[in-house]
Order: sequence, then C-alpha cells, then structure tokens
Amino acid sequence: MLSKNDVKNIKSLEQKKFRMEKGLFIAEGPKLTGELLGRFECILVAATQEWIGSRRNIPAARVETVTQEELRRASLLQAPQDVLAVFRIPSAVTSMTDAASRNLVLALDDVQDPGNLGTIVRIADWFGIKDIFCSKGTADIYNPKAVQATMGAIARVRLHYVDLSKSISELPAGVPVYGTFLEGDVIYDTPLSDNGVIIMGNEGNGIGREVGRLVNRKLFIPNWPQGAVTSESLNVAIATAVVCSEFRRRSR
Amino acid sequence: MLSKNDVKNIKSLEQKKFRMEKGLFIAEGPKLTGELLGRFECILVAATQEWIGSRRNIPAARVETVTQEELRRASLLQAPQDVLAVFRIPSAVTSMTDAASRNLVLALDDVQDPGNLGTIVRIADWFGIKDIFCSKGTADIYNPKAVQATMGAIARVRLHYVDLSKSISELPAGVPVYGTFLEGDVIYDTPLSDNGVIIMGNEGNGIGREVGRLVNRKLFIPNWPQGAVTSESLNVAIATAVVCSEFRRRSR
Repeated sequence: MLSKNDVKNIKSLEQKKFRMEKGLFIAEGPKLTGELLGRFECILVAATQEWIGSRRNIPAARVETVTQEELRRASLLQAPQDVLAVFRIPSAVTSMTDAASRNLVLALDDVQDPGNLGTIVRIADWFGIKDIFCSKGTADIYNPKAVQATMGAIARVRLHYVDLSKSISELPAGVPVYGTFLEGDVIYDTPLSDNGVIIMGNEGNGIGREVGRLVNRKLFIPNWPQGAVTSESLNVAIATAVVCSEFRRRSR
Repeated sequence: MLSKNDVKNIKSLEQKKFRMEKGLFIAEGPKLTGELLGRFECILVAATQEWIGSRRNIPAARVETVTQEELRRASLLQAPQDVLAVFRIPSAVTSMTDAASRNLVLALDDVQDPGNLGTIVRIADWFGIKDIFCSKGTADIYNPKAVQATMGAIARVRLHYVDLSKSISELPAGVPVYGTFLEGDVIYDTPLSDNGVIIMGNEGNGIGREVGRLVNRKLFIPNWPQGAVTSESLNVAIATAVVCSEFRRRSR
C-alpha cells in the first residue's frame, strides 16, 4: 500500500525542482520499468499483484502491492499500466574530451521538448552513441515525459548537463566538431570520422551562435530534388536520426 | 467578429466525424496558415487586426477581425497565435499505380499517432515524396494536431486514404514494394530504386501481416555496433527519415 505521503512524493517528481532536490525520477509501465530495474538504483516499486507475481525478483529497496485505483492516484500517466517505480538519478562523470576523443558523442544545444529529447536518446542507443552532452538549457531527461519517450534507452545512454561551449572549447585540437547548417557541406559526400562531437540545436533557433562558432565541420542534409521548395527544416530528432545513420553507414 | 455558431463550428472540427461531414479542417498560427493560404480553398480566416494589417491580400471567402480573447475562445491550441483559418479538405485522386510507377511514394499501415503522421508528412516533403497512401486505420491527417505537426508540409504532399492491401496488390509486376523488417537486408548495401512504394507500419505492431505479404524488398536499418543490445526498434517517423534519406542519397 502507498501512504498519502508516498503519493505526494511520487507526484512531486513531475517537477524538476523536486527531482533535483531528492535526486529521484519516476518511470511507469512494465516495459520501461523492466528495462530500468537492475540498471538504476530503485527505491520503490508500486505494482499490481499480477505484475509482482510475474517477476522472479524485483531489485528494489521497497516493493508495494497496489490496486489499480491506488496506482491511478499515484501515476502521472493518463492510462497507468500495472507498475510505477522510483529510481535514483545516477551521477555520470565522463568528460567530453575523454568520450569524444575515442567515440562519437552527441551534444544538444537547448533542445526544449522532452519528447524530442527522449526520442534522441532512443536514436543514440540504436546507433551506439553512449554519451550525450546537454547544455543547461536543454530539457531535463528525468522529466517523466522524456523518460517515457526513451522507451528504456535511458538505461544504456549517459546524459551529462554541462556548460556546452566551455566543454567544446576545451577539446584537444583535432577532435572534429560537427553541426548541421543550411550552408554546410552535403553530408553524403563529406568525410566523416569515427569519433568527435555532433551538435544538434534548439527546435526553433538551431545551434546557438556561441556554440556554432566552435563547429569545425559544417554538414547539411540536402532536401530533394536539389533546390526544391520544401519545408524549411527537419525536426531536431529527425535530423539527428539522419545524421547518426549516415555516420554509422560509413563506419561499418 | 465570430458568432457563437462560428465558434461552435470551428471547435467541432477537432472531431473527425464533423471534419468528414463538413469536408473542412482547421489550421492555426501565422506560419502554418501562411503556408496553406492560396494552396487550399479557405472559407474563413479569423485573425487579429495586426495580422490582417500585415498581409497584402488574404485569399479567403470570409475574413473576420477578432480580439485575442475571441481567438482564444475559438482556438484549439493552448496558446493561440494571431490567426486561425478553416480550409476545405481537397479531394486527391492519384492512383498508387500511377504514382509508384514513376516516383517514390510512402504507404502507411495504421500509423496511429497524429504527431507521428504530421512529422512523416514533413519528412516526405523534405525528401521530395509527393504522395502518401494511408490505410483506413491510419490517423486522419486533418486532425488539428497532425496538421500542426506538418508545419505546412501538408500544402505540398498529397494524402490518400485507401484500402492499402488492395492498392498494393493491384500494382503492376516490377514495381518495388519496400518495407522494414528485422530480418530484412541491410538498407545501406541493398539496391534501391527511384520509384516504388515504401511501407511504414504501426507504432506498436509494425507492418500488418496482410500488407507485409505484399512486400517484395525487405529492408533493415542496422543498429550499431552489429549485434549490440539496444532499443528494440526506432520510432516510425525516425525510421521513415532514415529510409527516405538513404533512398535520396542513392538517387542523386
């Protein structure tokens, strides 16, 4: 059973302020929760008898059996799904220099929408990108909507909130810094490396001026046919997918 | 000024039943409305004095100046933006055989989410795909959320709601029918044509069995590195973007 105080604490995690204060985040549903259990320290599972009965073990400090009605009261979803869990936010400490010297990493310059952010984490996971560096103005990955949108990929990708222009400017010379720009080189014809930073920008404004100055390899995803009147741009998650796919096509 | 009845009529267009009955849809905001005016028959523009003053001409049967407060009452958005317009749903009559014999087209098998659908239209526009054939179970592109998600691309891409398996099965022999499957051939290494049908499936279940049987070129977007434990799949809009980008890379 969940106490009134439990429900209040769970609900509070919808707000960034309380997530930061408590160092906790929430995930819901059998699929997502199943992916995160064992990967993140779990302090509470609240689930139906049926879900609990279906699991051999539940690596959580506290497990509470709840009715659907109780679950509905605690859930942040419109349609709660059998289980809800509270996890501790991990503290990741990879430096951009370490990560980008050896591997490809993503850097997000003020991506605002939690759904886009979660989708980008899922794309990074698919294409084997393990580290994402986010500007302080980027949406919080522990926002429940972002967590849900990762579909569990958050268990395999590390996110770091940093001073983006500082981190990029401290990279050793020779580490490529990619970004997409309308005046960039056609991505399909440009040499691409197996390491470095790929910067993706804000939904409305793209890559900001300060960060943009640090890009040393400007890329462009061409629309088709060349010179056609089409949409002005692609959504940031869509562009991330096209760019990551093209990098991985080359590095096979 | 808008009458009570106008507001009621506008609001009713949130529901598919009334959109079908009246053959009308709604679009909001200066950017989207600006893209659609002149492309679709417009029966009503309701806008602030400021917006109306900023336009040289407004190709609409009726133009009403409204206050922000009036606009708020009629709008379906949380944050109404200066202008709202009601357009007539066009009747497109391209056959799949005509379109797919000459060009690449998309076919959507029960894509459910209006946001995904709108995003796919925006991707199609970027990559020069002019016709999208949707199963009857696919979300309605004239759903206000889908219209907004196209960001205006709906003005340049035609959508057709058809019996998908019937249309595909009636294609002449030799028209390639592509679909993505986990057991498909790696897309980067497979010959791709400049015409044919690319099928994208439902968010949860992928391409249905009936339509799937008609696919004659199975493709796969590989995750990276090969054999890594990653997310089980990509979001349907993300997969559409990767596939379209790869087709267009080859056909340049």
